[in-house]
Amino acid sequence: MDDVTAYVQELGRSAREAARQMNRLDPGLKDRALLTMADRIEAQAADIQAANREDLERARAEGLDPALVDRLELTGDRVAAMADGLRQVAGLPDPVGAINGLSTRPSGIQVGKMRVPLGVIGIIYESRPNVTADAAALCLKSGNAAILRGGKEALSSNRAISHIMRTVLAEVGLPEGVVSVIDTPDRAAVGALLTMPEYVDIIIPRGGKGLIERVAADSQVPVIKHLEGVCHTYIDADADLDQAASIALNAKTQRYGTCNTMETLLVDAAVAESVLPHLGERFRDAGVELRGCSRTRELVPGAAEASEEDWSTEYLGPILAVRVVADLDAALSHIAEYGSGHTDVIVTESYSRARRFLREVDSSSVMVNASSRFADGYEYGLGAEIGISTNKLHARGPVGLEGLTTEKFVVLGSGQTRG
Amino acid sequence: MDDVTAYVQELGRSAREAARQMNRLDPGLKDRALLTMADRIEAQAADIQAANREDLERARAEGLDPALVDRLELTGDRVAAMADGLRQVAGLPDPVGAINGLSTRPSGIQVGKMRVPLGVIGIIYESRPNVTADAAALCLKSGNAAILRGGKEALSSNRAISHIMRTVLAEVGLPEGVVSVIDTPDRAAVGALLTMPEYVDIIIPRGGKGLIERVAADSQVPVIKHLEGVCHTYIDADADLDQAASIALNAKTQRYGTCNTMETLLVDAAVAESVLPHLGERFRDAGVELRGCSRTRELVPGAAEASEEDWSTEYLGPILAVRVVADLDAALSHIAEYGSGHTDVIVTESYSRARRFLREVDSSSVMVNASSRFADGYEYGLGAEIGISTNKLHARGPVGLEGLTTEKFVVLGSGQTRG
Repeated sequence: MDDVTAYVQELGRSAREAARQMNRLDPGLKDRALLTMADRIEAQAADIQAANREDLERARAEGLDPALVDRLELTGDRVAAMADGLRQVAGLPDPVGAINGLSTRPSGIQVGKMRVPLGVIGIIYESRPNVTADAAALCLKSGNAAILRGGKEALSSNRAISHIMRTVLAEVGLPEGVVSVIDTPDRAAVGALLTMPEYVDIIIPRGGKGLIERVAADSQVPVIKHLEGVCHTYIDADADLDQAASIALNAKTQRYGTCNTMETLLVDAAVAESVLPHLGERFRDAGVELRGCSRTRELVPGAAEASEEDWSTEYLGPILAVRVVADLDAALSHIAEYGSGHTDVIVTESYSRARRFLREVDSSSVMVNASSRFADGYEYGLGAEIGISTNKLHARGPVGLEGLTTEKFVVLGSGQTRG
Repeated sequence: MDDVTAYVQELGRSAREAARQMNRLDPGLKDRALLTMADRIEAQAADIQAANREDLERARAEGLDPALVDRLELTGDRVAAMADGLRQVAGLPDPVGAINGLSTRPSGIQVGKMRVPLGVIGIIYESRPNVTADAAALCLKSGNAAILRGGKEALSSNRAISHIMRTVLAEVGLPEGVVSVIDTPDRAAVGALLTMPEYVDIIIPRGGKGLIERVAADSQVPVIKHLEGVCHTYIDADADLDQAASIALNAKTQRYGTCNTMETLLVDAAVAESVLPHLGERFRDAGVELRGCSRTRELVPGAAEASEEDWSTEYLGPILAVRVVADLDAALSHIAEYGSGHTDVIVTESYSRARRFLREVDSSSVMVNASSRFADGYEYGLGAEIGISTNKLHARGPVGLEGLTTEKFVVLGSGQTRG
């Protein structure tokens, strides 16, 4: 075993032990730790920013893309937001230990399900160093140990943040192993993290599609992920057309770079002529390039021709694919064929078609008459989210504290044996 | 692509299409199909048994282990039980479509979770042909399409059963692709089934540890599995000792070959002398070979010496490992180190230690004062089970209809956009 693998395995062993200890410690210590961490991050903002400057200087010297350098920077506001985030997580209800559905069976045993931590969570992420605090806080609150692997460009910042968190853990009497940062730029560390099922229960990658695909391909433990959001809005024949226009504009233009942004607009042929010319103009005014089917291009002068590839592209920018479809069935088929199972929306006043869309679209979020931009842990009331999952199993959609836990059966008996 | 892969992919494509259609058909058709299948299986018992005789003759000619030949045989009783099983599944509540937790958010959208089928389920199993009907029925009731791959020794039986099921599906107006059997003994078919995530959402292997390990290693889609059940009973210092003895005897001897059978007995040192001599005798009378630690061997004359390997062995037979431990912490450490995360039991009258055991043991079922043999879908009230999962994610413990479904977020709006 090489040194890097041995190092990561040692972190894993220590995290597994810490996770076990968490199960027997006073749950109130978790919130005390989070609140103290928040105070300490504010008090030691200067140290964090000094470490961050090392990362920034190295990044600039290495000619990193200015957009990435910007994401790397921990301004005073961003440090304050990090501390606030910890306080918010501390304020959420503790998901651990709840027993649901306890009922008595004919044999006399009582059977229910207890919500418990997953154990050890590996987080692999790219440049933003605030993820270190956010992700660690969610893992801690849900009773898990976290092993964090940030981008090598943020190594000093992540080290400074995790040093504060670990110091506080020790102060309040929690095992330091609950939060660890892989403190080497060596890429072999990721490979090691993905292949130790004895120490890691689940991996959550946060970053671009390339990172997530690599992690999913190499991991020997389950991965909570979403590869991309090719989100659709379907304007049905019975839509309120003003509402449809406002939802479509919001879904595309409120933010371009998020995974719940609309990438393809589907319009029922029956209303295409009433909707598309005006809506096309509004998209153009907003600076959105339209790529349409032939019917769209008849109705929207200046729209480019959509290629087959456009239907499955997540633009993450001011481009929108537009297709006129014959009816709901055609819309459903289009979404099944080209969608990514993230978030899809129907705008309609038809009860039956709303119901069919809700039932038949196989995506992590399915909406009627609302902007896809609502697909978000905060908007859904989860309090905070660690990401959005397009997995079908376990956590699907925005993943909050509950998604970082699992359930086990508990049986309370009074001496029952099976006959 | 070779012919077998092309054939399995075509089954997958057809199953995927059938699963989509299931979402739009009258849910009542599922029960009608199940009840009709039950009648038809009874009416055509002779055909099924004739097909089964072909399998039996081939198996005997090939010198198959008599125990396996016995499992392969479809007696009249077993055919009747198969039909009854279908009727029971028809009688269970339909899990699909329930919307839970629908609540209104500050933005005005209503957010809830809808229970939906997983999609397409691949089932890989060994000789017992009744699994064909059982598994297909659970998949159908939960709205999924099933692709079944039985053992090659049961090919004729499985073909006869699935022929009846598919005929009935077509008669009641459900797509035949909802149930398909891979109708070739070629082993490459399993490889193909495990590596088409575009058509298969989840794999459930049923069989020996070797089969399950191979499937888990090769699968590109999630696998619901349990590798083994190394189940513990821990007799605490504050146990009711008569109760403890009766639970331990039941957990070991009620059936030897099941995964929820106790394989290791842990006894607190404080009560070892009161418990072990008498209990050891009762196990010996029941024909159970004991393999103990040195303290056990002092207290139970004739007990063999347990090796390190015994602590992690699933005997599936009349052998029991016995260890005297210093206290609850030592018991918890033993279970964490050697257990398989299946089912573990404490016998105690101590409130605090019962509570610690429930919280700290990380197994799919954790019990107080009851026999581990209760870890079972029927005993838990799930109605039926397709297996027991020791996965942490998704379905954990006995897996019933709910474990064959997932949830998606649904959002009901009235034109909301995000500000």
